Amino acid sequence: MTPHRRLLFAATLLLATPLAAQTETASPEEATLRRIYFEALEHGEAFPNLRALVTLAPGRLAGSKALDRAVAWGEQTLTALKLDRVYEQDVMVPHWERGPKESVTLLSASGAIPLTAVALGGSVPGDVTAEVVEVKSLPELDQLGRGKLAGKIVFFNRPMDPAVIIPGSAYGGAGDQRNRGPGVAATFGAVAALTRSLTHAHDDIPHTGATNYVPSQPKISAAALSTLAADKLSAALAADPHTKVSLKINSQWFPDAPSHNVIGEIRGTEFPNEIILVGGHTDSWDIAPGAHDDGSGVVQSIEVLRIFRAIGLKPRHTLRCVLFVNEENGTRGATAYASAAKGSAEKHLFAVETDNGGFQPHGFTIGSTQGDAAGRAARWLPFFRPYGIFEFRKGTAGTDVTPLLVQGVTVAEMTPDSQRYFDIHHTSEDTLDKVNPRELQLGAAALASLIWLVDTQGL
Amino acid sequence: MTPHRRLLFAATLLLATPLAAQTETASPEEATLRRIYFEALEHGEAFPNLRALVTLAPGRLAGSKALDRAVAWGEQTLTALKLDRVYEQDVMVPHWERGPKESVTLLSASGAIPLTAVALGGSVPGDVTAEVVEVKSLPELDQLGRGKLAGKIVFFNRPMDPAVIIPGSAYGGAGDQRNRGPGVAATFGAVAALTRSLTHAHDDIPHTGATNYVPSQPKISAAALSTLAADKLSAALAADPHTKVSLKINSQWFPDAPSHNVIGEIRGTEFPNEIILVGGHTDSWDIAPGAHDDGSGVVQSIEVLRIFRAIGLKPRHTLRCVLFVNEENGTRGATAYASAAKGSAEKHLFAVETDNGGFQPHGFTIGSTQGDAAGRAARWLPFFRPYGIFEFRKGTAGTDVTPLLVQGVTVAEMTPDSQRYFDIHHTSEDTLDKVNPRELQLGAAALASLIWLVDTQGL
Repeated sequence: MTPHRRLLFAATLLLATPLAAQTETASPEEATLRRIYFEALEHGEAFPNLRALVTLAPGRLAGSKALDRAVAWGEQTLTALKLDRVYEQDVMVPHWERGPKESVTLLSASGAIPLTAVALGGSVPGDVTAEVVEVKSLPELDQLGRGKLAGKIVFFNRPMDPAVIIPGSAYGGAGDQRNRGPGVAATFGAVAALTRSLTHAHDDIPHTGATNYVPSQPKISAAALSTLAADKLSAALAADPHTKVSLKINSQWFPDAPSHNVIGEIRGTEFPNEIILVGGHTDSWDIAPGAHDDGSGVVQSIEVLRIFRAIGLKPRHTLRCVLFVNEENGTRGATAYASAAKGSAEKHLFAVETDNGGFQPHGFTIGSTQGDAAGRAARWLPFFRPYGIFEFRKGTAGTDVTPLLVQGVTVAEMTPDSQRYFDIHHTSEDTLDKVNPRELQLGAAALASLIWLVDTQGL
Repeated sequence: MTPHRRLLFAATLLLATPLAAQTETASPEEATLRRIYFEALEHGEAFPNLRALVTLAPGRLAGSKALDRAVAWGEQTLTALKLDRVYEQDVMVPHWERGPKESVTLLSASGAIPLTAVALGGSVPGDVTAEVVEVKSLPELDQLGRGKLAGKIVFFNRPMDPAVIIPGSAYGGAGDQRNRGPGVAATFGAVAALTRSLTHAHDDIPHTGATNYVPSQPKISAAALSTLAADKLSAALAADPHTKVSLKINSQWFPDAPSHNVIGEIRGTEFPNEIILVGGHTDSWDIAPGAHDDGSGVVQSIEVLRIFRAIGLKPRHTLRCVLFVNEENGTRGATAYASAAKGSAEKHLFAVETDNGGFQPHGFTIGSTQGDAAGRAARWLPFFRPYGIFEFRKGTAGTDVTPLLVQGVTVAEMTPDSQRYFDIHHTSEDTLDKVNPRELQLGAAALASLIWLVDTQGL
């Protein structure tokens, strides 16, 4: 396209002119959002911060040295903002390690074929060779029964539904296979479990994630196959139902380890004991650099406080950034935070989380015990529309702030574009180059804008 | 995040359930859009088609063999859909070639430093060494005058404004430097021109694009520097205003070459002489694989017809896919098409273009000589919202269909998410891996849906 044509096009759009060129007629809301977005886009530090975090501490799973480095980095970065207070909240976190690389091998008539796989988070170790039973759902296990499953490797191979528009919903719809499948298969005497990676992508990248066993029941080793490997195994089973697979997982559980939520605050000018919280989580899966999940949420949360400081916004309520620990495999940080909040003299007004990737933001889900907060927030949509924010939906929030909902806190989560997220979610490919600096800053600005509106007008 | 939490989240969203699970209560519009999106997401062929196109014919600039291959591929691909008619429209296109690689070298006191650059499309050849005058705008040339510019290389270094939310608008705002800058500098006696690449990215990838000289005035060689190279040159000039640069461009103009618009049609059941057009452009810049620009538009336009055929939608008006040629440096395809349309017995009802990248679509700009067509289209927004389409804005369309507007045709262009587009626009990095298959299919489905609504309900 030609710039000339673009300019004509641009003339029809809001904010085609620089944000700095404010008009006399702007409302206070319009004027403040312009200042926030201008600061975010002209002087943003989220992307350099993200580069620092993922370079210093990739694979920052609970219990790892990388997580220790990430936590220390979070505290240093908040401290450098010269906030009113920066402190840690002690949390004991689970400590699981993958150990030497796992292997899954298809034993075909023509020889051994390696299948690209990763152990699921929390899997017990094991070294098993057995025939494979492919299923598409957990109810199939009931139908097959112990007679057909005992001694076998159960292979959960239901894809994420491509026709579901929102990938997070398709992820939810297929996730029982990873989350509960191995544990349930063990109750039928299965000796190991394989799951198809939770992604719409058709490639050779395996996706990990937590699996949870059934209490007081046997535990079996569990790994996720890349979608291509899953197709390969399925084809082999179609050709020969007695095909065997050899699976070796070298994981180990250690005693719980000490870690910390990291908290930074700008003290409220009018209501210092009333809290508005913004947060993300410091930990990532061990195999993942964690640029999107949730490095982007960490640096966006920090950036919100930086923007308030940089443009001189003084919140009436205390603005608190919380870098939660251990979201991925235990949510101990969220639990500890919610427990402390419950016993505290503080009152939480609003808590917003960013843990859906650092893509172009489009809105927020909002949950409240006091009526339809999303509907009330919709009055602000005209201020957000120029920036691509077009919806406030009723819903829950993320894992880290939802525990506050039962305490009466209105909770929210940012909802960015998500078509690309599950291509890299929980994989080695969740790298810095997948994050666009402007999209990351637009997210920080959207968070800062919503927080400023809640702070000044209530929700 | 855990799948369990995701499922809770999903329950709050429209279309969390598979599209195939239609309810009895769906309106005809809801039901048809579900069928369109289901077909697009379950059986889409746009991404494999895009892979074929960019593998077969990267760098398909007007006059190149690659363009000949792309045109032939387009005709074969449309023919394979067993449409009612597939044909070519002859177009003579300009033929400019870059020739052996250009070079731009900073001659500093400490030695010669290569600057990453590409010749602008249409630049005359040249081999020049001269002092450099840095400017931020074309009006500065008037202020400096011939006395300060004659014999110099003019360096246009105004960045795209980061605080403009929509990158296409920032591109429009900075584009005069590339489009007209070199030609205007030549009128002041400048011997060559350099421009800062039109991108928000800060990296070493140079962006080409067309430059146009002033008729009957001297023509000078012109190249774009990567943004990092532009910063390097600017720093060198700040340290020593007499810094020289050596620039060598080996381009060549050839006689116009024969090429073709490629057209495929599904004949209208009621109004076969009334046309609804969907199109993109086959050509790309010579240095670019052209995956987004405009490979994605080409395969989406083809996909619209495939979807109509696959799900048995029989358009009342003739549905025509046009693969325009030579959008990038001449728009001869668009001109030829509009001329033919003007002299034809056919009537064009509606023409929609896709040339803004294959990202997540969010809406359409619509231009009409018959009142506010965008406002009228907004009645359909409730049908589109579940798919992420949230706006119909009044505006112009793209370069290829806008010529039809003056003939009274309502024209439109799809507007996808654009934050990432100008990172790779007109560069060697406009590659297949930058395109997300689901986003590409969502675009094809949005186009098919809008076309079906216009066909059945009018606009």
